This record gives sequence, C-alpha cells and structure tokens, in this order.
Amino acid sequence: MARADARQSSSEQDPASLAAAVRAGDRRALARAITLVESTRDDHRDEARALIAELLPETGRSVRLGITGVPGVGKSTFIEAFGLHLIEAGHRVAVLAVDPTSKRSGGSILADKTRMETLSRSTEAFIRPSPAGTTLGGVARRTRETMLVCEAAGFDVVIVETVGVGQSETAVADMVDMFVLLLAPAGGDELQGIKKGVVEMADLLVVNKADGDLKAAAGRAAAEYQHALEMLTPANPAWLPRVLQCSALESAGIGAVWDAVGDYREALEPEGAIAARRAGQAKAWMWSEIEDSLVTALRAHPGVRAMLPELEAAVAAGEMPPATAAARVLAAFRGETGA
Amino acid sequence: MARADARQSSSEQDPASLAAAVRAGDRRALARAITLVESTRDDHRDEARALIAELLPETGRSVRLGITGVPGVGKSTFIEAFGLHLIEAGHRVAVLAVDPTSKRSGGSILADKTRMETLSRSTEAFIRPSPAGTTLGGVARRTRETMLVCEAAGFDVVIVETVGVGQSETAVADMVDMFVLLLAPAGGDELQGIKKGVVEMADLLVVNKADGDLKAAAGRAAAEYQHALEMLTPANPAWLPRVLQCSALESAGIGAVWDAVGDYREALEPEGAIAARRAGQAKAWMWSEIEDSLVTALRAHPGVRAMLPELEAAVAAGEMPPATAAARVLAAFRGETGA
Repeated sequence: MARADARQSSSEQDPASLAAAVRAGDRRALARAITLVESTRDDHRDEARALIAELLPETGRSVRLGITGVPGVGKSTFIEAFGLHLIEAGHRVAVLAVDPTSKRSGGSILADKTRMETLSRSTEAFIRPSPAGTTLGGVARRTRETMLVCEAAGFDVVIVETVGVGQSETAVADMVDMFVLLLAPAGGDELQGIKKGVVEMADLLVVNKADGDLKAAAGRAAAEYQHALEMLTPANPAWLPRVLQCSALESAGIGAVWDAVGDYREALEPEGAIAARRAGQAKAWMWSEIEDSLVTALRAHPGVRAMLPELEAAVAAGEMPPATAAARVLAAFRGETGA
Repeated sequence: MARADARQSSSEQDPASLAAAVRAGDRRALARAITLVESTRDDHRDEARALIAELLPETGRSVRLGITGVPGVGKSTFIEAFGLHLIEAGHRVAVLAVDPTSKRSGGSILADKTRMETLSRSTEAFIRPSPAGTTLGGVARRTRETMLVCEAAGFDVVIVETVGVGQSETAVADMVDMFVLLLAPAGGDELQGIKKGVVEMADLLVVNKADGDLKAAAGRAAAEYQHALEMLTPANPAWLPRVLQCSALESAGIGAVWDAVGDYREALEPEGAIAARRAGQAKAWMWSEIEDSLVTALRAHPGVRAMLPELEAAVAAGEMPPATAAARVLAAFRGETGA
C-alpha cells in the first residue's frame, strides 16, 4: 500500500521521456513535471534535477513578470484581463504564485483557478497555485523550477504573483525580469498597507480600479506615485519606472501595461541588462540551494541529531555560548571528534 | 614583520587570564577582549569562543536596550543625555553600535566617541563603534559577543544603537530585551523615512526634540503615533507599547524614558517573558553561527574552490541549472565523487 502510494506520487516516467513530453506540449506531462519539481522527497529531487537539466536548453525564452499588490487591489481580476489580452495577441501565458503561508495558515492560495475562471479555461494558459511549504526559500526554489518547466513547454509569458507576505516580494523580484506593483486608487503606501521598499523595487506601477466612482481617485493616486518615483534613483538609468492606470474590471488600459513591458525590454535588452539580471539571479539561486542543502544535511546527520537537543537547551538556558554550541555541531557534522 | 603584526593584533593573553582581567574591571583588558571578539582570524575565533565561555556565568545581568532612529533624529544627543542620567543613578553603561555599512561605505560610524563627548569621558561608560564588516550577520555576531564581554565587565545597562540600514533594526531587536524607536517631531513614518515594520517592532516610541519651536509638533507627532499603536496587536498582551516625548538637548523627559524601561521589565519579568525572549535569541544565534560557519567552510574547501569558478560561470550563462551546480558543490564538499 505504502509502496503503491510512493509509485503514484512519483513521476512514473524517466526524466528524459518526461522532458520530451513536456517539450511536445503534453499538458498532463507538464502537470506531472511540476508535481515532481514540487516534491521534497530526496529521490524526487534527484529526478527533478535531471529533468531540469534536460529542459534547460529550451528555457529562458519567456518574458518573466512579477506582480504584487495587497489583498483587495484586484490582482486576480487584473491577471485574468491581462492574460486574456496576451492570449488574444498570440501569446501563451503561465501564471504561478509564491505564497509561503499557503500551507501553514491555510491562507491565501494564490493563482487559484476558480479566481480566474475564463483564463483557466483557455488552452493557451496554465495556472498553478503556490507550492505548499514552510520556508520562503523552498517555495521560491520550486516556483523558479516550475517557471523553467513552463518555458520549456512553450509558454512565452510567465507571470509570478505574490501577496507580499514576509519577504516574498523580494523573492519574486529575484526570479523575474520585471516587477510590477498593482495599486489601489488610494493615496499613500501606508494607507494601502504597502511595505516600505516595495515601491522602490517596482519597475512599473499600475493603479487598478480606474473606473466608475474611483476614476478621479485613481488619477490622483497615479500622480502622487509618479511624483514619489521622481524622488527615487532608478536601478538602471536606461529605464525610469512609470505609473499607469487601468480598469481590470472593464479591461481598459490593459494593452498599455503590455506595451510598457515591451518598452522596458527594448530599453534594457540592447545593453544586456536583462541577461545580466538573469545571470545574477541564477548565481544567487545556486548559493541559496547550497545553503539550504547544507543545513538540511547537517540536521539529518545522526551525530548532530543526537547532540542537538542538549546543546539547544544549554544555549537557551544561557549555560553555553551559542558560538561554542555551533562549533561542536560543526565538528560533529564534519566528522571530527568534539573539541 | 608580518609575524610581529600578527602578535600585536592577537590578545597576547590566554583566554582565562584575559577573562579574569575583564571581570576585575580592567579597561585595557576589556578593549583587548573586544578586539579579540571582533577579529575574523580563525585562531582568534577559537580564543574568542574560549573567552566567552569563561565569561558566560557573569553575563546576562544587564538591561539590554536597542535604540534606532533615522539620521537627524538626535540619536547621539539622546544617548548621551540618557547615559549620563543612568550614570547619575548609579548605573554603568555600555554603548555599542550595529552598522553593516561602516566599513564598506566609510559611512556612518556609530557610537563615535566624538559624538558623545561628556559620556565618553565618564569612567562609568564604555562606548564602542560598530565593528567593521561586510555582512550584517558578522557585525551582529560580534556585537552580541561584545555585549556579553561588557556585561562580564560589570556594565549593567547595554545600549545597542543602529541607524537602520538594511535589516539592522531586526538584527538589533533580536539581541536586546527592549527595542526603542526614537522619532522626530514630524508626522508620518513616510515623511520620517522610517521603514515599514519598524514601528511594529518597537516596545517604546520616544519623540525627541520636544523643545522650543518644535514642542507643539512633538505633541502632535506623539498623539499620532499613540493612535497608530492602538491599531496594532502588541507582541505580548502584558505590555502595550507607549509613546513618550523628550528633549535630549535640554535633558528633559529623559528620566521618564528610563522609568518606562523599568515598567516594561516589571510587566514582563514576572511571567518569564524576558528570559523566554533571550532563550529564543540565543538559539537563533546558534543557528545563524552554524549556517555562517558551514558556508565559510564550504567556500574554503579545496575541491569546492577548484570547481566554483566554472560552475558559477555555467550557471550564470544558463548552461547549468543552479540546483545541479549546487548538488555538485555539495558532493565535493562532503567528500563524495561527483554525481
């Protein structure tokens, strides 16, 4: 029974043939590949690495967009309207999500298919909720790999959305080419609950709900943010972040957002800035993989596991300096006899 | 010559006798002990760990206060007035600083003696600028150990200040019993350049410069912040963060700040909340030591060093998945033959 379960939860396919099916556009293979990438089982991790290595030559050809905005800003309505606009223009769109709380609190599962009904029914779209996980690093790693799988499956626009819990905006900005902040037609970051630093991270600000009663307020908010942006030093002098207005509900102004994405790429691609951003992201990702794996290996080491409870208790009680406890743990892990 | 330099920069004393001199209140020993703690040399790290282990039984008896505030808020004037008030009341005060930019940018060296002239001349005070360092983790670790050394030397109030660069407020809040945010008499976090989340971290807010022309503005700012605090859920229901006003320049309202520190301790000590906070901090510190040391050991491993440039280049060029490169680095580090 346990064995049957294990078989069922595995990919049931060797990485090379699964990769071939993903590349051929087989949607069930795509779903299986992502399930494999999201698994935390050691043997699945090995298979997932092999799969990603197979797919790598077919990746990197999409426009990678991050979208954040506090709850209530109309993020799913915007992504639905934006995604449908892209599909009409001949693109294939994947929508992924980063939400480290989706397991722990049972909270806001993003990129929920029921939220984006029309988009989710399109054969040119693929919507995937946030992988479950307790650490942002783990969730981010799996979303990055899922992005690569989607690229290999032929999606040429990948949208990664986040509600902005903890450091998730930073995690998303660190995996995309361009970071978009969706705003409500209200003044002031504070009023909107936007964390300090998020406006500074954005390459494009979009004030949503520029419709009906809120149209005038949206105009005022846009002007206010435009003013705030002018105070900031842009990350790259070739692109000055701008503020747009749209109504996702009425599908108005959505084309202009996509045009701005095009302008951004035209401004930065010739000087290699997007390639440089991706190269830096890949290196940082490698290092975070190394650190996570090291700590996981250390925690699993029998000698370390045996000594940890006592050391943690002594440190918590103030009877042993943290640095001394750390040195003992490391000595055990590295196979030395205790100092 | 190099050998003479190395000797000079070492403690020139075995940890046990250095610890005895620190405990006896020898100021030159205190300075030597801190220099040892701040050193990044491997042999010094071993000596520093031994020193801290010797001193540990004499530590933990001080009131540990964190103070943050943006530049211009009058932080050094406040700490000078506050420190002198404490010394008059019979306390011995150590002032430490956390500023991860102090080396890199040559920027704001905190806890500069020239800034706190009167306080620095007192035999009952000890002022130490931020240790140089490129990572916040390294700077924070050395400040934590310096705090322990100061406690063993008989300082019963330790103030750790920060300008709030990067995540330094979090680092400081994670090493103290109580976190104080110093504010200017102006309205709104945004206007003051305070990062989102810092107000929420504070156990006490103090509006400085409540004097002269600014007195009315200070009152309005205090009322505004008091109102904002009432919207927040306190970290511990036994203590509701409060807002005070003072004039460091005129030494007015300084005693009330110290009274609030006393109230805080009276509210939280009986239920063990301060001891619990310290226990959690010590455990977190142990884990950050472990992670830092693991990565340092990995980077120093000959096999890893030999393969890193090529792997990083392949990852940056998009030719190798980060997870694959990470797995190879780990295999080399753990003495396995490459996968």
